Amino acid sequence: MSQTNGFHVAVVGATGAVGEQILETLTKRQFPISKLTLLSSARSAGKKIFHQGKEIIVEEAKPDSFTGVDIALFSAGGSVSRELAPEAVKRGAIVIDNTSAFRMASDVPLVVPEVNEYELHNHNGIIANPNCSTIQMVVTLEPIRKQYGLKKVIVSTYQAVSGAGAAAIDELNHQTQSILNKQPFEPKILPVKGANKHYQIAFNAIPQIDQFEDNGYTFEEMKMINETKKIMSMPELQVAATCVRLPVAVGHSESVYLEVEKTDVTAADMKTLLSDAPGITLQDNPENQLYPMPADCVGKSDVFVGRIRKDLDEASGFHMWIVADNLLKGAALNSVQIAESLVKLGLVK
Amino acid sequence: MSQTNGFHVAVVGATGAVGEQILETLTKRQFPISKLTLLSSARSAGKKIFHQGKEIIVEEAKPDSFTGVDIALFSAGGSVSRELAPEAVKRGAIVIDNTSAFRMASDVPLVVPEVNEYELHNHNGIIANPNCSTIQMVVTLEPIRKQYGLKKVIVSTYQAVSGAGAAAIDELNHQTQSILNKQPFEPKILPVKGANKHYQIAFNAIPQIDQFEDNGYTFEEMKMINETKKIMSMPELQVAATCVRLPVAVGHSESVYLEVEKTDVTAADMKTLLSDAPGITLQDNPENQLYPMPADCVGKSDVFVGRIRKDLDEASGFHMWIVADNLLKGAALNSVQIAESLVKLGLVK
Repeated sequence: MSQTNGFHVAVVGATGAVGEQILETLTKRQFPISKLTLLSSARSAGKKIFHQGKEIIVEEAKPDSFTGVDIALFSAGGSVSRELAPEAVKRGAIVIDNTSAFRMASDVPLVVPEVNEYELHNHNGIIANPNCSTIQMVVTLEPIRKQYGLKKVIVSTYQAVSGAGAAAIDELNHQTQSILNKQPFEPKILPVKGANKHYQIAFNAIPQIDQFEDNGYTFEEMKMINETKKIMSMPELQVAATCVRLPVAVGHSESVYLEVEKTDVTAADMKTLLSDAPGITLQDNPENQLYPMPADCVGKSDVFVGRIRKDLDEASGFHMWIVADNLLKGAALNSVQIAESLVKLGLVK
Repeated sequence: MSQTNGFHVAVVGATGAVGEQILETLTKRQFPISKLTLLSSARSAGKKIFHQGKEIIVEEAKPDSFTGVDIALFSAGGSVSRELAPEAVKRGAIVIDNTSAFRMASDVPLVVPEVNEYELHNHNGIIANPNCSTIQMVVTLEPIRKQYGLKKVIVSTYQAVSGAGAAAIDELNHQTQSILNKQPFEPKILPVKGANKHYQIAFNAIPQIDQFEDNGYTFEEMKMINETKKIMSMPELQVAATCVRLPVAVGHSESVYLEVEKTDVTAADMKTLLSDAPGITLQDNPENQLYPMPADCVGKSDVFVGRIRKDLDEASGFHMWIVADNLLKGAALNSVQIAESLVKLGLVK
């Protein structure tokens, strides 16, 4: 520890939806902090944030903001990370980056502590926090891989609008009220803020998250595919994804089909395995209509898994339903868990 | 034709959500009707329905209601069909049943005209209309099977509440308004009317449609699996389904992964094939953010297909996104199309 009472922590993007959750999570988990620096874009600088009874003024993030910082949690968009994360590292900070800027860089560990905490040893200053929809899936896949081997994953997502920021939640609420009142409205944010066309999300489902790539997949789908292979160190794993945005504020759900290497695994085996896996709460009892739902996961740390059943044709195939709070385990919590792991492994100077 | 101007048509369940759509569809498609008999449960009997400028009084459905009827369209729940469909057949009517009562009976054709119209020749009085989520999928699968062969299908659904009746739409709207107003509410209908537990559907996703079977699958999922095999005459086809209810009023969406028999088919081939297939409108242009969405399909007859792309690992694998109005092609329209096919094939006495 650089200071006896804890670390100098900087939060970049402190006024955003994820930034807010990071501050709450640091407090809730009693992360050892000696000094807290809150940073943002010039536009949000000057705002005051109350944290543990103290008023902290948010400062504009600049290279010199990171002097003396031990751990910098970035969550202010890819361009801010690309510009300032290297500056923070130059000044001795370890960066935990919640954007997609460095996730696929070969010298940047992409970490979900339940899966690949050991990769933190290989960091060069920047550690990337994976995409929200990837995190909850790999937390579930890893114990399965360990026990039974893993060959193939096909996922269809049911994603909440908060993944697109607080403004997307406002848009969902406003559109919903307009439709109930039979009033006109104009979509402005979803599916993608900068895109040419915007569509109604209220009472609808939009099969586009992020921009399209040339191969017909969206960036979000390719993130799930590539990040899963990297986090699990399985370049040969077959992964396919279809990502869909729903009129849900918080909580991503995923319908996952997977094939293991063994053919004699039962659904009961799978349930026993996952009921004991780190970071997972099993919610699987059809008789009592017990299964995970986004409305139930909000504000909770774990990944919830249910509807586990064996494929009826493929002896190595299983179906399951995976739900998590996309702002917590999908973002803020995983970032803070990475910071905790760094401390535990003695990797913070 | 039994009468020079058309047929004596009975609609059982005329006051329900699907019954209403059947009446509208019969008119819109100018089905030749000489006499229209509207039937319902005792509870709804006596209601007046305006049809083509005429007021028709809804009568209680009884065995003798079917005397003289040529075609009876049933959509009043499985128990009504089980009781009265055989009575209608005894009296010379052909029954087109929109419930699950007879779908898997070996002597009952289960028909989607675009797929297996020829099966109508084998009817013994009752013809079953498949489950809504099955219909839109097999309309899409059949041209693919014909051209490239079909081995495997894995579907995750995104289903509208109207599949659970008009009361479920009311529940969605009421819950949604309550949440926006921060007022309490009590779920009463979804996920399944008769079930022990009811859950919030507004701003949520419920991975249960219909009751659970012992194997962990829901009836809805088993319907999709078994009906698909029967309609396509492919008992060996590998089909798996996960069915999820969304806060959408009308319009079912499906994320479908499929494997064909050939390995050299391209996404462009698949798009060309489906752009020309009966009952399908291709909506697939990522560059223009063109893809199907439930909000766009309401009131339209076709099945909308988009997001077609090749799997990145499996040379015979494809992903696509299939959307249709579950009350029309998923129910009323398909029933009326069956009636039209019966007339065209000379199968109505």
